[in-house]
Amino acid sequence: MNIEQLIVTGIRTATAEVFSTMLGVELSVGELTIEGGEPEPNDGVVSLIGLAGPWMGTGSVSCCPELACRICSHMLMTEAAAVDEEVLDAVAELTNMIIGGVKNRLEPVLGPLCLSIPTVVFGRNFRTKSAGMAEWIVLRFPWEGSQFAVKMCLTKAEKIHPMLHAPSHACTLEA
Amino acid sequence: MNIEQLIVTGIRTATAEVFSTMLGVELSVGELTIEGGEPEPNDGVVSLIGLAGPWMGTGSVSCCPELACRICSHMLMTEAAAVDEEVLDAVAELTNMIIGGVKNRLEPVLGPLCLSIPTVVFGRNFRTKSAGMAEWIVLRFPWEGSQFAVKMCLTKAEKIHPMLHAPSHACTLEA
Repeated sequence: MNIEQLIVTGIRTATAEVFSTMLGVELSVGELTIEGGEPEPNDGVVSLIGLAGPWMGTGSVSCCPELACRICSHMLMTEAAAVDEEVLDAVAELTNMIIGGVKNRLEPVLGPLCLSIPTVVFGRNFRTKSAGMAEWIVLRFPWEGSQFAVKMCLTKAEKIHPMLHAPSHACTLEA
Repeated sequence: MNIEQLIVTGIRTATAEVFSTMLGVELSVGELTIEGGEPEPNDGVVSLIGLAGPWMGTGSVSCCPELACRICSHMLMTEAAAVDEEVLDAVAELTNMIIGGVKNRLEPVLGPLCLSIPTVVFGRNFRTKSAGMAEWIVLRFPWEGSQFAVKMCLTKAEKIHPMLHAPSHACTLEA
């Protein structure tokens, strides 16, 4: 299995598991696309989390405000009517669990990876671009008439930027 | 020197060095504020980069679109009239250098840290929130009638979230 297939399978499995366990929702397998690294217009809620180590990249989940509120309602068992701090925290938590699950599936092949903390962005018509990333693996899961998207870009550290693999930035991990 | 002072000094020194070396600009010392972790409204360009290891957090630089274009013009020696892909890449690069510099100053005290790759967000009136972070150290540097802000939040990994320090997510780093 190549790295791309490993990521696709990792996202499918981790997302299905987290949705089933945390939200009591059985997702379909989701539609796979490979997208370029150009700045991408976004509406709604986008959560970003960094991956670092011998491979580096970014994991992301995104959805519309209504789905973000629904996630919060499912996770905290309270109604969320608008995207507030609690909703952003719930989406961050879900990101952490899904991308953490993908990371666990990648590590036996790629070696130990560090996961940073998620930052959630919320707004209309904003664009996001991750440095040095040519390709994103994107899975879109239909849910309640809308879509929940999980994305990941991952590249060997030495391919990204000289600063990131200079000795002072070296990042040797122990399992 | 406590951690907060170390971060403040690290941001001041790293930002001044990068501006001087990369842009030929001598910055003032900048105004320090400590800000809460509530979702923050943003306009313009915000670049985010994750830090992970025994301490976890996020580094960020932000500025208005005009300053972002100016950064790109200085770095690439070409005129940038609007925030395009090249401008976002230049801001990402600057983020990497500044937060990488802060990281290098923190490591002798905090131990080795991983730096992820920057993601740049561009838009109007979007909000950002980093998970589990109560406090941001913010330095605002006046520049060309506007402001260039560098922010960092950093917390001991075990204070953030059980998942982040579970064995499967453990992140032991070697210098």
